[in-house]
Amino acid sequence: MTPDQTTQAILYVIVVLIFAKLFGEFAERLKQPAVLGELIAGVILGGSVLGWIRINTGHSLPPQLAVLTFLAELGVILLLFEVGLDSDLEEFLRVGPSAFLVATIGVIGPFAAGYLVSSLVFHVSTIVSVFIGATLTATSVGITARTLSDLNQLHTKEAKIILGAAVIDDVLGLIILAVVSGMVSSSSGSISLWEIGKTALLAVVFLLSAIIIGIRITPFLLKVAKSLYTRGMITISAFLFCLALSWIAHEIRLATIVGAFAAGLILAKTEDQAHIRHRIEPVADIFIPIFFVMLGLSVNIAYFNPFNPEARSALGLTGTLILVAIVMKVISGLGVLGRGVKKLVVGVGMIPRGEVGLIFASLGLSRGIITVDEYAGIIAVIIVTTFITPPLLKAVFSFHRRNAA
Amino acid sequence: MTPDQTTQAILYVIVVLIFAKLFGEFAERLKQPAVLGELIAGVILGGSVLGWIRINTGHSLPPQLAVLTFLAELGVILLLFEVGLDSDLEEFLRVGPSAFLVATIGVIGPFAAGYLVSSLVFHVSTIVSVFIGATLTATSVGITARTLSDLNQLHTKEAKIILGAAVIDDVLGLIILAVVSGMVSSSSGSISLWEIGKTALLAVVFLLSAIIIGIRITPFLLKVAKSLYTRGMITISAFLFCLALSWIAHEIRLATIVGAFAAGLILAKTEDQAHIRHRIEPVADIFIPIFFVMLGLSVNIAYFNPFNPEARSALGLTGTLILVAIVMKVISGLGVLGRGVKKLVVGVGMIPRGEVGLIFASLGLSRGIITVDEYAGIIAVIIVTTFITPPLLKAVFSFHRRNAA
Repeated sequence: MTPDQTTQAILYVIVVLIFAKLFGEFAERLKQPAVLGELIAGVILGGSVLGWIRINTGHSLPPQLAVLTFLAELGVILLLFEVGLDSDLEEFLRVGPSAFLVATIGVIGPFAAGYLVSSLVFHVSTIVSVFIGATLTATSVGITARTLSDLNQLHTKEAKIILGAAVIDDVLGLIILAVVSGMVSSSSGSISLWEIGKTALLAVVFLLSAIIIGIRITPFLLKVAKSLYTRGMITISAFLFCLALSWIAHEIRLATIVGAFAAGLILAKTEDQAHIRHRIEPVADIFIPIFFVMLGLSVNIAYFNPFNPEARSALGLTGTLILVAIVMKVISGLGVLGRGVKKLVVGVGMIPRGEVGLIFASLGLSRGIITVDEYAGIIAVIIVTTFITPPLLKAVFSFHRRNAA
Repeated sequence: MTPDQTTQAILYVIVVLIFAKLFGEFAERLKQPAVLGELIAGVILGGSVLGWIRINTGHSLPPQLAVLTFLAELGVILLLFEVGLDSDLEEFLRVGPSAFLVATIGVIGPFAAGYLVSSLVFHVSTIVSVFIGATLTATSVGITARTLSDLNQLHTKEAKIILGAAVIDDVLGLIILAVVSGMVSSSSGSISLWEIGKTALLAVVFLLSAIIIGIRITPFLLKVAKSLYTRGMITISAFLFCLALSWIAHEIRLATIVGAFAAGLILAKTEDQAHIRHRIEPVADIFIPIFFVMLGLSVNIAYFNPFNPEARSALGLTGTLILVAIVMKVISGLGVLGRGVKKLVVGVGMIPRGEVGLIFASLGLSRGIITVDEYAGIIAVIIVTTFITPPLLKAVFSFHRRNAA
């Protein structure tokens, strides 16, 4: 990385943050969550509109853009870390059964509906239908967490259920990924149940042991940190703890943000919670918007251009998949047990899809299982569910507030 | 950048920060500035010892390492921004004449001595001697600023003179770079005085106008930032202002950190100084150590292995250059006007060399002007002056304290 590339990366950060704040502010003035503005800022900066920052996914990214990708990942890790820090583990355990049901319905529903629609309506082969169903399962919680934060609703019971369900959802997604990858890579189509069980078990063991052991040892670790001479030890220790759990989560094939969320939950139980929260906030303020602008950057609006023949030919399948993806997750809100919880909020909060769906789609495309049209359809699902969630969540909250009044 | 590369970059950050804090703590327990420990942490992680992180300078850096390079740059930018935020512009103007004299002596002295020693003692050609002299001129203020901060001496008059002189030194270094590059690239050896004058003028105009205009408009900008709805606007505005001035400084061929320092000085005059300082601190705490570990990482201790014939052959020149580099900057302390200022502290604070010397050396090597031996000698100057300054500054302060008692 030459000094010129470094300063170009600095320029990228400047432009991304200015656009993020400008459009975030617009969004808020229009009474929309700021995150919607940041997504749109990304679309505008990206290849479809201004073309100032072009990211073509792949290995050959110039170093300046690799830096942006990293800062974006750091941003979403810090977002979930903050959300964890603001949360109370007991409350999560209390909503555990609801979260489990919501996650399970929210995985089985889209899977079954995606499979049935693909095979019955669009007459694609069984394996492709299974594949399409699988891409619709995993919720990507970043956008919901951020929207709830923008709307000041992170402390509600609905938020706890959504976040808990998202963690369980990620473990379920891992199992499905193992099954589907197994189907793809083994020529016989048979899958080792033991391998799948091991993957899932590892994830569950990690989460449980991180929380159980973490809660016991972090007070001790922080005491050591405080006894040290050097400046800023608590901030750095907390930051390192968050990065370490994120890294481990990725190594066992969970999402990094699940690790970051667990790290936040654990440190929330320490007496330094308020201090850590306060010190991490400015770091998070700087890097979180970069993640959402980068999400917007990767949108190619050509997919939605009705005059683009490629987009039009896939329109039927794409539209159907988007509908299935939205409706089946909204239905998952019915998994909430007990009364006094806004089921519609929970269902809408589970709508966004993200990286996991993208991993499935890329896998399917590279193995020649799904066609370019089907791939475009899945990308469209991710884009639409991402952009629709902030205004939809906002509307659902307003609807409930009006009804209560 | 693949998700695996992103998480590997996360792992690098974890390892770098753990080593930084571990060795920084060791250094402090041995009553040395923490920064010395961070430099050593880098050497140990680097190719010469553990080899966990190998940086070969150049374009082909893998993206994970490009990320580390960027975070290091961000670290040193935040360091000088903090130093600027803690400073009072009037105090700088008051020590202006001293700073100017120190900078001038500190540029002319090493240049003349480097030239004379090379041509008279080592009998190298005139152009190479000029080149070697030029590489010894520019002080790199990062290490001194950090050491003064570690020693809680940033508020002393000595610190102001050093920082002021370092800014002037950077402008002078720019002029020398223009002269020497001109000598190198023009076959006739003639240089356009107009070009050089323009470069220098641009730097001075930038610094003056940034400060004069900056002080007038930042209160207004911050008022706008405060009127916005979105969270963390003051932190982000200050951060953006710092990045923007750093970027401009680089574009007009000054060091990024000169821009960052100016940004800090300007915001120090606003009523939000304390708030900004407080919010930037955790961000700085995280990224500053990465810079110093990366400095250590680039050290190849093979240069200092007396059993390495290549290192031995250059030993005479290398040793002499190191001596000249140290002695001539210490002498620059005599440029301090008036009484009550520890001239030795100022001189020692000006010792470290850094990127500018490296730019000269790389230019000379790539054009075939200097030999590999001479290049190694210049690298050795940078390494030794960097590592020697923290303990030396500490010792000089202790010496003065003992004398005063």
